[in-house]
Amino acid sequence: MADALKVGIAGLGTVGASLVRIIQNRANELATTCGRAIEITAVTARDRTRDRGIDISRIQWFDTPEQLAREADIDVFVELVGGAEGAAANSVRAALERGLHVVTANKALLAASGVELAKIAEEKGALLNFEAAVAGGIPVIKALRESLTGNTVSRVYGIMNGTCNYILTRMEKEGLSFADCLKEAQRLGYAEADPAFDIEGNDTAHKLAILTTLAFGTQIAADEIYLEGITNISIEDIRAASDLGYRIKLLGVAQRTESGIEQRVHPTMVPYDSVIAQVDGVTNAVAIESDILGELLMVGPGAGGNATASSVLGDIADIAKSRPGAQRVPVLGTPAAALAPYKRAQMQSHEGGYFIRLTVADRTGVFASIAARMAENAISLESIVQRANPDTAETAKTIILVTHATMEDSIRKAVEAIKSESYLVGEPQVIRIERPKDL
Amino acid sequence: MADALKVGIAGLGTVGASLVRIIQNRANELATTCGRAIEITAVTARDRTRDRGIDISRIQWFDTPEQLAREADIDVFVELVGGAEGAAANSVRAALERGLHVVTANKALLAASGVELAKIAEEKGALLNFEAAVAGGIPVIKALRESLTGNTVSRVYGIMNGTCNYILTRMEKEGLSFADCLKEAQRLGYAEADPAFDIEGNDTAHKLAILTTLAFGTQIAADEIYLEGITNISIEDIRAASDLGYRIKLLGVAQRTESGIEQRVHPTMVPYDSVIAQVDGVTNAVAIESDILGELLMVGPGAGGNATASSVLGDIADIAKSRPGAQRVPVLGTPAAALAPYKRAQMQSHEGGYFIRLTVADRTGVFASIAARMAENAISLESIVQRANPDTAETAKTIILVTHATMEDSIRKAVEAIKSESYLVGEPQVIRIERPKDL
Repeated sequence: MADALKVGIAGLGTVGASLVRIIQNRANELATTCGRAIEITAVTARDRTRDRGIDISRIQWFDTPEQLAREADIDVFVELVGGAEGAAANSVRAALERGLHVVTANKALLAASGVELAKIAEEKGALLNFEAAVAGGIPVIKALRESLTGNTVSRVYGIMNGTCNYILTRMEKEGLSFADCLKEAQRLGYAEADPAFDIEGNDTAHKLAILTTLAFGTQIAADEIYLEGITNISIEDIRAASDLGYRIKLLGVAQRTESGIEQRVHPTMVPYDSVIAQVDGVTNAVAIESDILGELLMVGPGAGGNATASSVLGDIADIAKSRPGAQRVPVLGTPAAALAPYKRAQMQSHEGGYFIRLTVADRTGVFASIAARMAENAISLESIVQRANPDTAETAKTIILVTHATMEDSIRKAVEAIKSESYLVGEPQVIRIERPKDL
Repeated sequence: MADALKVGIAGLGTVGASLVRIIQNRANELATTCGRAIEITAVTARDRTRDRGIDISRIQWFDTPEQLAREADIDVFVELVGGAEGAAANSVRAALERGLHVVTANKALLAASGVELAKIAEEKGALLNFEAAVAGGIPVIKALRESLTGNTVSRVYGIMNGTCNYILTRMEKEGLSFADCLKEAQRLGYAEADPAFDIEGNDTAHKLAILTTLAFGTQIAADEIYLEGITNISIEDIRAASDLGYRIKLLGVAQRTESGIEQRVHPTMVPYDSVIAQVDGVTNAVAIESDILGELLMVGPGAGGNATASSVLGDIADIAKSRPGAQRVPVLGTPAAALAPYKRAQMQSHEGGYFIRLTVADRTGVFASIAARMAENAISLESIVQRANPDTAETAKTIILVTHATMEDSIRKAVEAIKSESYLVGEPQVIRIERPKDL
């Protein structure tokens, strides 16, 4: 049997502690499968003495991630510190510069500096694996980076934030408000005390930026993502969606179009009988549409110590199974030096179906006016529903429009025109519709 | 850039022709991604002159797969001939004995001789990749063999035969009979002229046997699978399932139990709101339940020239990206020499919910008698539905029972007891219920 693979772990939070436990408890099975032992020989964390339910007494301790990355006698550096800068970035850079393989779960770091890190890794002949950074336990990085080699991807999209999906699912199933569901998510530990990063879509955007690069072979462009969170989604939207045969999900979508690549994160209506519509609670799902394979959908846990640790361990095992320097898997699917520039498709030119919910005064001619504003912008309607609005005065009613595929620009102009009419009560709600290709 | 990877392809049917076309058309992209060119240098097929829409004039021709495997100047032998024995088996064996890497889509060959072939590959330091052999384009082999390293799998199950899923979907959506849907599937090319291998479950069984070995690290035991096809499923069953909140799918299920491993292929009722229940038509789906990752579900095309070629190409690309002899990925997840014996769990001891549909004479005391037979066998009932039967005489009625988790043995005894009663009209229908864990 070959020499043991020596692993150093920076960060012993939930994921790090799970990882140590699993590697220690399954040492024999791992050695059999990988053809060599996997040994944790160095660790670092903020607090050395905290009880994590794991035995690290025989593992060499380092005071900082940077020190571990620079000095430890290891083959693989595992970064579970988090954050786009500081200790995480410095230690990963230092490890790669030494030619060490790196495994990380850090989406923020990759979204910010993935290309630069990939370049260092590829120059040094090191592997940089990050399965856990997107959709936790779902092996979507491996699918894009390895299985789909030779495919031209047209669209990748998914439910990549468990907090948002949990909130939307509870709102629908129990008829609760957004605020109540958020509180419940916080109570259960599914949402942070400051939930903004999740519910405003930033977390999904980081993950999407990484998938976009893997799917389309372009530079990472995390700052060029159209972003809309779920704070604005009301129970009325969810009910109306349901009546029309849709469910609302926060999707991250990256799509190749004639004018460039669209990257967008927003609440989305998906057809009720599509597979992704049935993905509930904190579960994640990622779909990839490509020209040879067709549509592939993967569903699984998007977070949690064990699920994330499972992906990290899979990444470590891949390194254990290859001889040092023997792999040429490009970090980002395409060699970093060959990544194409990212060309952003403007959101105004996005094409798709739209759901528009308007609360209007119950007056003669309103319906005709709305229809006229749509027609003036060449928007073709799939359905129009008018109903009494239980939450507003009797003099108001709700009008729901679903459009055929149309340009975002046209929708914006039509909505602006309607906003200037005196009959509108409150803000119009606009939700984009996304249709899975085959599933 | 390293030397080109030389590939020999045996079999130029739909998949083989797709593969040649893709490798030729995407030569530059593949070379960039893999760090070396992929070149087809040898081919063989039954008919040299047939027009396949591809140019093989500059590729060396061999008359037989065996000859190509033994004599061609290649690094990788791709077997797309099919069949458990004969040319496919002989050529794969010969290629591995030469130390060539092998990529195959041949489930029958692996189900029959996978362990023996894995042993040769591992002794010779060759890779044997077979992503396309199970569920076509879905990367389930890679997930089990690589991503899930370190996990203990408890259950793997899936929809792995597109013909059966197409028939069941059409029956449900259009209220057609099994026979009519089969004819339609044959007309569309989704079913063979002799459909027995698909509709009686054998095709699913071959794939299941391979997944079982990858999931549980046991010897391949394709002959020890409980087998029940879909020929017996009627539109009444599908309607009753729907009324009770279920859909009927042909599942292959492998499950670790206290008494051994269950391998079974049978029509199965899955809850309507589970993700897998929404997988329609020729699409396949495979779910893996394991202790660290949790539940992972993958959905995608299970067949078709391009989808299958995509998996074959992914396998070839994995070889191109590693240096010769540098990989130690065990062919079957566990090194062939370390596979445990397969211990079969008897079907009689299977535990689960059951759907039982009985057509009975409309007589006093029948209901009580059925309830008594269930109680005598300690079967606890979740629901009982009685309805008029439109398809039989007015004197007959239908009784549908859904049980809580119970032993197969108890169900068989209860059904036998009911069969000996004079009120039963026709054969009882028994369908097992399977519950996804989280999804």
